[in-house]
Amino acid sequence: MSENTLHSWLARRLAGGGERVLVGAGADDCAHLDVRGLTQIAVSVDTLVEGTHFRATDAPFAVGGKAVLSSLSDLAASGCRPLWGVVALTLRRGAGDAYAQEIMAGIIAAAETYHLAVVGGDTTSAESATTVGVTVIGAPFGERPLGRRGAQAGDILAVTGELGGSLAGRHLCPAPRFAEIKQLLTLAPVHACLDISDGLALDLHRLLAASGVGAEIDESAIPLSAAARAAPSGKSATARALGDGEDFELLFAVSAGDWEKIAREWKHCGIATRLTPIGRVTAEKGARLITAAGVKELAAAGYEHRF
Amino acid sequence: MSENTLHSWLARRLAGGGERVLVGAGADDCAHLDVRGLTQIAVSVDTLVEGTHFRATDAPFAVGGKAVLSSLSDLAASGCRPLWGVVALTLRRGAGDAYAQEIMAGIIAAAETYHLAVVGGDTTSAESATTVGVTVIGAPFGERPLGRRGAQAGDILAVTGELGGSLAGRHLCPAPRFAEIKQLLTLAPVHACLDISDGLALDLHRLLAASGVGAEIDESAIPLSAAARAAPSGKSATARALGDGEDFELLFAVSAGDWEKIAREWKHCGIATRLTPIGRVTAEKGARLITAAGVKELAAAGYEHRF
Repeated sequence: MSENTLHSWLARRLAGGGERVLVGAGADDCAHLDVRGLTQIAVSVDTLVEGTHFRATDAPFAVGGKAVLSSLSDLAASGCRPLWGVVALTLRRGAGDAYAQEIMAGIIAAAETYHLAVVGGDTTSAESATTVGVTVIGAPFGERPLGRRGAQAGDILAVTGELGGSLAGRHLCPAPRFAEIKQLLTLAPVHACLDISDGLALDLHRLLAASGVGAEIDESAIPLSAAARAAPSGKSATARALGDGEDFELLFAVSAGDWEKIAREWKHCGIATRLTPIGRVTAEKGARLITAAGVKELAAAGYEHRF
Repeated sequence: MSENTLHSWLARRLAGGGERVLVGAGADDCAHLDVRGLTQIAVSVDTLVEGTHFRATDAPFAVGGKAVLSSLSDLAASGCRPLWGVVALTLRRGAGDAYAQEIMAGIIAAAETYHLAVVGGDTTSAESATTVGVTVIGAPFGERPLGRRGAQAGDILAVTGELGGSLAGRHLCPAPRFAEIKQLLTLAPVHACLDISDGLALDLHRLLAASGVGAEIDESAIPLSAAARAAPSGKSATARALGDGEDFELLFAVSAGDWEKIAREWKHCGIATRLTPIGRVTAEKGARLITAAGVKELAAAGYEHRF
């Protein structure tokens, strides 16, 4: 399939429109987007690489979807709703028309689910591996995007959903927590937030470092996914929850008083995702894990790419 | 080098600021950007793949620079000034610290030259090839971005600079034509514009198709680069100018009257880049090349990636 053919196929598949889209996908060197009335936007990019983030045998539809969903998860963690996406697709030579179309169909389906207008992209080829990069742009639900800094000593740290064991399947279909963060923001100010992509331990340290604070985490409070519990022996369910990565759940900090309010009101919000308090922010830096056997240092370990 | 180490190195290298940057590179899940007072933005992405767009032996500094510059060329063609860039860097495993840092240094140097604030990115690794994707966001010099549609029968088609033979070296250091398009827009309305990335013949057809018109091109008028003239035999200099690609010059359409004005005023503008009229837009569709031997069909041939 040639670049022009893929472009044509895409142009047919894409509505070509979308909120605030003046010139959209493939029609021009750039997409032209209307930002009148907006005060801030948030931008993020995520890349999936064959052999690193997915296998050549994974369903291309799921791969395309995951590329969009993992980028969208960053927007959700920033308290933003999706507006526009730009796709950089590098296809392994010989991958074939069906593969290319399935990966794009997965991208389009995920984008449509979350009202993300795919407004452009670049298609190219590589000798040996397919790479999908998705840049997403959004606008805050509130006045401004959320960030990692802002957690204060005394805050409650809480997470959405359950953690660990994502490799059993859940990692291929992240569910960006837009409804959850939007609802949280209507209930109380969120001091700091991020999405857990590289494991709770590592991402917690990122939030703490950005905020200049520390934390105590209650080991027994960490919500463990069924996949983490069912995982083969050798690694405890808690270790999986702390280190597996690709949970795409939110970790956030709110004041203790606001947490009381959130805990009280959440069940009336009509959102099935549970929220779990897992610890407290401390003035003392570093992270400590409170276990039945005592307190131990929680290292900043998780999944990291090495070059 | 680990992902976190590269992030730290980057954070030190990047000013962390930039025009309208509220939260910048690496600090958060998303960059937070100020769009107050803007009415439109333009977005584009370009990806360079090792083995397709560059060789493993090419200087990484130049590769990083080209990734930024080729994306910026799309902004220039859209009549926009650079604001923000987001980098998706996938490094071949084993590439090493020096390679990673040089590629980023090239990205940063090119961005600084054109006042593009690098506000975020994603670093990951791949088994076999390095890939650099740069998404750029800009704001129009005028009221709105330029596009490919809008060329009208009777318009003059002109190009900046000289074409062909970019593979001799020029392809590694594109010069986005910001000063040129900004100056053109102060002289006259530009009906349509794009940057010649896949060869004059193919990109001309894209502009014509988007505008729903045709064109006559004077073969003898096409400005040939020294590299196109010096190229080894087997392909004429004109064929190289029509088909080589990666010129990153602008092709644009203006009314015949406005072209007279531009031609008269250009030498007083203090811009060394020459402008050359190469033909006329026609109501009759398709593209025709007027040669000494007569008129022939100009096919939409140029560089295309195949999967």
